[in-house]
Amino acid sequence: MKFLSFRFEDKLLYGVKVKKEEAAWNIVRIHKELLPNENVPASLLEGIQNGMELQETVRKCIRAAEESDHVSRYKVKFTDLVWEAPIPRTPKNVICIGKNYRDHVMELGGDGNVPEAIVVFTKAATSITGDNSLIPSYEEITKELDYEGELAIVIGKKGKNIPKQQAIDYVFGYTIVNDVTARDLQLKHKQFFLGKSLDATCPMGPYLVSKDEIPNPGQLSIVTKVNDEIRQDGNTRDMLFSIEEIIATLSRGMTLEPGDVIATGTPAGVGKGMNPPEFLKKGDQVKISIQGIGTLFNEIGE
Amino acid sequence: MKFLSFRFEDKLLYGVKVKKEEAAWNIVRIHKELLPNENVPASLLEGIQNGMELQETVRKCIRAAEESDHVSRYKVKFTDLVWEAPIPRTPKNVICIGKNYRDHVMELGGDGNVPEAIVVFTKAATSITGDNSLIPSYEEITKELDYEGELAIVIGKKGKNIPKQQAIDYVFGYTIVNDVTARDLQLKHKQFFLGKSLDATCPMGPYLVSKDEIPNPGQLSIVTKVNDEIRQDGNTRDMLFSIEEIIATLSRGMTLEPGDVIATGTPAGVGKGMNPPEFLKKGDQVKISIQGIGTLFNEIGE
Repeated sequence: MKFLSFRFEDKLLYGVKVKKEEAAWNIVRIHKELLPNENVPASLLEGIQNGMELQETVRKCIRAAEESDHVSRYKVKFTDLVWEAPIPRTPKNVICIGKNYRDHVMELGGDGNVPEAIVVFTKAATSITGDNSLIPSYEEITKELDYEGELAIVIGKKGKNIPKQQAIDYVFGYTIVNDVTARDLQLKHKQFFLGKSLDATCPMGPYLVSKDEIPNPGQLSIVTKVNDEIRQDGNTRDMLFSIEEIIATLSRGMTLEPGDVIATGTPAGVGKGMNPPEFLKKGDQVKISIQGIGTLFNEIGE
Repeated sequence: MKFLSFRFEDKLLYGVKVKKEEAAWNIVRIHKELLPNENVPASLLEGIQNGMELQETVRKCIRAAEESDHVSRYKVKFTDLVWEAPIPRTPKNVICIGKNYRDHVMELGGDGNVPEAIVVFTKAATSITGDNSLIPSYEEITKELDYEGELAIVIGKKGKNIPKQQAIDYVFGYTIVNDVTARDLQLKHKQFFLGKSLDATCPMGPYLVSKDEIPNPGQLSIVTKVNDEIRQDGNTRDMLFSIEEIIATLSRGMTLEPGDVIATGTPAGVGKGMNPPEFLKKGDQVKISIQGIGTLFNEIGE
């Protein structure tokens, strides 16, 4: 299922992509008008936090809409909605894995920087924004705004000390994150947090795809384009630390919670790695496509 | 005012220390029974998020209790409650400043490591725990569990690009944080997040003291004792980056929110800095005292 969160008629809603249509089932409206006595979550995050039966509930909603006399009343065309990140506010900061593709480590620092253990930092929960939104250029704060296309895991079940073999049981699904980075701040402040946490520098979406649709998260192509020029052309099979290893390592002593988002690192091809480096500027358009999920699109604004 | 959050009769409540008594006014009960029509927040975080009139509301509650026929019904003795962190769950990760006291930088790394810019990392929101609770020893995960006594700022008002001169306007008050750190994980994973984020390694409290009671946050003594031996004996006047500078720098492009907690760094005297290093082990008792706030006490458990 391809879940999405969106704004429509000034309300924050969520839904599921209608098959073969550029539209979303408006789950909140279906609940209110057709199934008022059903226990339907008010947001995608609430649904994930309530447990794994979200898909079943949503299927029931879609059936009710399809059988109603006003099917179109329960769909919102993509042209009529404002995209939000599938989880517009994560329960804690967005967790990010650094240096998780060898070729990306090489382009920025060389062989000596290939990590022996997983490198983990966070982006402030306030940095999240949706598909199709503007990322400010922050011209007065940074001269080196850069993109990083990444596959992100969304946790579906609370867990601690999760063995690698069971890691995927704790995944709800997958989405795309652009880990937009102010390289100069990242370097200046040593720890990555500040350079990674400017408002609206964590575009996420467009969809959160349930894991049943992505049986091979470790074999997905990731392509990032800037103004339609291919910059990153990677594959999740090249991760130094796999999704299973990431979940196992993070959860050693630290509880993972439903709705936590873990961005798994970026392949080679970031702006700083180019010769000469080429950073994002006003008007640039960034598209990140991951197989089975879709394309996350953002433009650099003022 | 000295605010606290606590558990009593299986409920998560909050209150204010009763003057000259080891007890808390039970604001939630006063609201329910004496002022049901008054708009009183259900938690300290909600009160802070609702704006700065929290103190006035609480004063009204205390007056109502004092004038009632059952004053003692509205107090909870400290011996009868379980302490919680004043903000048991922050809206985003706890923000931490690293290397903010020269003598601490010297004890761990030497002169070359004195930072030219503020070093910022986070602790997972799930790592928060209260005064008087057990910190697990995590013997299977770390061999180098260490304490760090720190003054923490609690933000009271949403803000972005806050000028230094106005920084204190955005502060609600101050508390104590023990930034418990697994040194080996901190080092192994390069970025600090994982070594700082084990569950229950962010003791906070006992009180959140409103800023009117602490007019000089940049001149407070901090003393940390382990098993009653003084280990850290510092003063916030020795911070490399002041509270005002921290708030101004963090908020450049990143929105600070009410309820955000910023731990301002630790003075010299951590276990790793001793010769030979001395790490925390089961049964150790850690007390951090900050002038005007109180003493945060925790013991290392299994």
